[in-house]
Amino acid sequence: MPAVLAAVGLSGFAIRSTLAATRAADQGVAGSCAACHGSAGQGSPALDAPRLAGLPRNYLLRQMQAFAGGQRRSAIMAPIARALSAGELARLASLYARSRAAPTVTSAAGTAASAGAANDLQLLARGARLARLGRWQQQLPACTQCHGARGSGVGESFPPLAGQSAAYLRAQLQAWQSGARDPGPLGLMGAIAHRLSALDISAVAVYFASGQPAVLPAPAQSQPPEQPQPPEQSQPPAQSAAAAVAAPFSPPPDSLIPHDAFGRVVRFGEQIFDDPSAYAAGFVGNRLRCSSCHLDRGRRAGSAPMWAAYVAYPAYRAKNGHVNTFAERLQGCFRYSMNGQAPPLGSPVLVALESYAYWLASGARVTAHLPGRGYPRVPPPARPADFRRGARVYAEHCALCHGKDGAGQNAREGTLAFPALWGDGSFNWGAGMADVDNAAGFIRANMPLSQDHTLSPQQTWDVALFMDSHERPQDPRFQGSVQATRRRFHDGADSMYGRRVNGHILGEGSTAAGGALQRVAR
Amino acid sequence: MPAVLAAVGLSGFAIRSTLAATRAADQGVAGSCAACHGSAGQGSPALDAPRLAGLPRNYLLRQMQAFAGGQRRSAIMAPIARALSAGELARLASLYARSRAAPTVTSAAGTAASAGAANDLQLLARGARLARLGRWQQQLPACTQCHGARGSGVGESFPPLAGQSAAYLRAQLQAWQSGARDPGPLGLMGAIAHRLSALDISAVAVYFASGQPAVLPAPAQSQPPEQPQPPEQSQPPAQSAAAAVAAPFSPPPDSLIPHDAFGRVVRFGEQIFDDPSAYAAGFVGNRLRCSSCHLDRGRRAGSAPMWAAYVAYPAYRAKNGHVNTFAERLQGCFRYSMNGQAPPLGSPVLVALESYAYWLASGARVTAHLPGRGYPRVPPPARPADFRRGARVYAEHCALCHGKDGAGQNAREGTLAFPALWGDGSFNWGAGMADVDNAAGFIRANMPLSQDHTLSPQQTWDVALFMDSHERPQDPRFQGSVQATRRRFHDGADSMYGRRVNGHILGEGSTAAGGALQRVAR
Repeated sequence: MPAVLAAVGLSGFAIRSTLAATRAADQGVAGSCAACHGSAGQGSPALDAPRLAGLPRNYLLRQMQAFAGGQRRSAIMAPIARALSAGELARLASLYARSRAAPTVTSAAGTAASAGAANDLQLLARGARLARLGRWQQQLPACTQCHGARGSGVGESFPPLAGQSAAYLRAQLQAWQSGARDPGPLGLMGAIAHRLSALDISAVAVYFASGQPAVLPAPAQSQPPEQPQPPEQSQPPAQSAAAAVAAPFSPPPDSLIPHDAFGRVVRFGEQIFDDPSAYAAGFVGNRLRCSSCHLDRGRRAGSAPMWAAYVAYPAYRAKNGHVNTFAERLQGCFRYSMNGQAPPLGSPVLVALESYAYWLASGARVTAHLPGRGYPRVPPPARPADFRRGARVYAEHCALCHGKDGAGQNAREGTLAFPALWGDGSFNWGAGMADVDNAAGFIRANMPLSQDHTLSPQQTWDVALFMDSHERPQDPRFQGSVQATRRRFHDGADSMYGRRVNGHILGEGSTAAGGALQRVAR
Repeated sequence: MPAVLAAVGLSGFAIRSTLAATRAADQGVAGSCAACHGSAGQGSPALDAPRLAGLPRNYLLRQMQAFAGGQRRSAIMAPIARALSAGELARLASLYARSRAAPTVTSAAGTAASAGAANDLQLLARGARLARLGRWQQQLPACTQCHGARGSGVGESFPPLAGQSAAYLRAQLQAWQSGARDPGPLGLMGAIAHRLSALDISAVAVYFASGQPAVLPAPAQSQPPEQPQPPEQSQPPAQSAAAAVAAPFSPPPDSLIPHDAFGRVVRFGEQIFDDPSAYAAGFVGNRLRCSSCHLDRGRRAGSAPMWAAYVAYPAYRAKNGHVNTFAERLQGCFRYSMNGQAPPLGSPVLVALESYAYWLASGARVTAHLPGRGYPRVPPPARPADFRRGARVYAEHCALCHGKDGAGQNAREGTLAFPALWGDGSFNWGAGMADVDNAAGFIRANMPLSQDHTLSPQQTWDVALFMDSHERPQDPRFQGSVQATRRRFHDGADSMYGRRVNGHILGEGSTAAGGALQRVAR
């Protein structure tokens, strides 16, 4: 490393001079940094220098502070970071954050053309699956869950991964795994890196460096690799009749969806599920995904998985006082959670979603009580749930992703990354998630992503109460007054609707239900 | 027996005198017969003399011929039968057939009030289940399947059972079991009696003598007795995870349907299933039951059981070229098999039927390939299926129940006993059963009732072709001409529609589809 330093002649002074020159020209790139990071911060794979262009300003700043403080180790960057003043660092961070330099991409095609083409494609496929689907049975969300559907980054804490070199990405994951790099906010990347094998790390690194194929490469027929075996941990046993009772159900991998007319409908259902505002536009009134509440695209046990719901209907629902088919139950999600309008029974959207849920349930037993159904109950709190304690839990554990104002965050390219938890863009007062007990169950079993069950029951109840004590779109069953609506629909539920919180009666400031339909339609 | 004979002074001569007197008075009862059989033929339990009133004339005649010929043994009746002339027998048979004497009934209430009330009620419940539900896993159809829903008898071959004494019914079943009584048409009663335990025989005898409660007695909670263990045969193993792969699925007994809002809908679905022209009037255009093609109320493997169908949808259907939900599949039954109009999606009738099917599937694995689904394929025939050979098979094996003209038969009280196989009252040309291969599968696996798999594959194909080569209501997808309709919908199927048979082009004489709706509505 000192050799590299010498080669490019870096020093605190050189940087400072460059910075002064840049300031004068008000152009976006610092000359001496450019020796390694490229003329516009595009990065240099050959020098192991990451792309800086387009990274969030505060993220860049925090990295420099970490180099200076030793939480992030680099023989090259540490002296540079220590030599620069706070003002200089801020200026550099702003410059790089604004840079729009095209990323240096190791194309998949280029990789495939090489000698080890088959192996490379296998690695790329593994990376694509981890990046886009995750491996939830190991608490590994998809990389894109936090870094945006295209890896373009979300907010100030989730930098772009797309366009970084494979070597750099690999090195960072290894550094988190070995503890050489500080695990970052909520310790997220430390925990995640520990769940990755060496092969996983290479795979996701290659994937994000490759320019990211828009669709998953078709997995090899012979070895469906949707749920690859983690090297340090034995695979859960295959779904055998003997094991079916004890082991939780696991839905079949996408790779087994047949390539026929039925399979096309199942895939359409999965597309709707993951992006209803794109594929079911006109029926949704917010940007939420079905997979916002049903993680891993409806596969995750304890996150109201679709396979368990499918085999639990038809069933009587107190919510509407009659026996609901699965199709009618789906309609409820559109009306309440999606704050939209229910697609008609028999419409392509409902048929596709029902087909997708049916597919996920392949091999499941038909029963209303399949283990993993719904959200688990949370033990009652020692003290009654409290808004102010909940606010503290929220600030510490939730705001990183969902924002201080609960409005969620989009990825840079505009797709939803983290759903709005309250406000006009969230589920309305009629949604199940607006009931505190449901919210508590979801949160404890699933939040923060990859760190479920880390909040205590008390914290869980407090933060669920906090989330559900904010204004959101009106209950579409509104009876003319909040109190009448509460009496009819909310008194029997664990709902804050109609209750006074901080001097405001919840529901009285709600916008009309479904009112955002036009705004969301693409 | 001679003692009884002496006591009542019976002889051929006495009978003959009585007959003459009766003839003169033209009243309905023969005096000397009345000594045992009651003044109006109502029967005498005390003398073990069966009820004769209202029995079919030809049935009575055949019994007397059997007494005379020794196929039915009775020390009392044999000499009487031999002493009477053919004309006298015919006259007596007509007299009794016309009698409307009220039956002698051993009421359930009376039985229950006795010392062994609990045992009696248990026996009655067992009898009710056998009589009304059968025990299909042992090839035992319900008694009411052939003798009418209320045991009031069907046609000339299935006498009333209601109102006979328990002692008489028991004695006859024992006689069939021991071979003392000729097994009757198709050997039906001989085979059936062999599948009954001594307890079964007492139970059905008590049930039909009891005046037949309108609904099944509620079975004891502790021991769901829907599928009682036959004494000579070990019970199929309970549905365990280990056995699930090998053993065919068996749906839960009715006794487990919960007594709540959901259970009410399931029961409504079962009622519709068993009697759609009563419970789904307005949507059906014939008198068929769902259970006409889905035996044992949708429970029987190999008879298109509902539990296997439920877990096989949504699925692509070539019939309409898209993915059908289970609800849409149900609609098809109304449109074609029931020659009616599909209930709207979400309507109570469809929701109830879907709920019933879901209930039957409780515990089944979700898969399109559950063993027992649909009708099994029949091995191809050695010679091409032939109408004339089929006509002979039909006359020998089918006409007893479905009638020479294929129009089916009703029980005395008007409920459907045997469905129409062709003609205006049958399924229309669009129904699956109108395809010869489907019909062959159903017939071989299920017909004649209690004697499935007795027809050879050749006989099966011949009779299926024969059945499906008769006129029936038009295909509701009619395209303006039979040939156009055949090209569009029947060329790809094993259908005789549009084919010339006996000089007639099938489909050209069809009545309009769904045309009988008004006639059937109650």
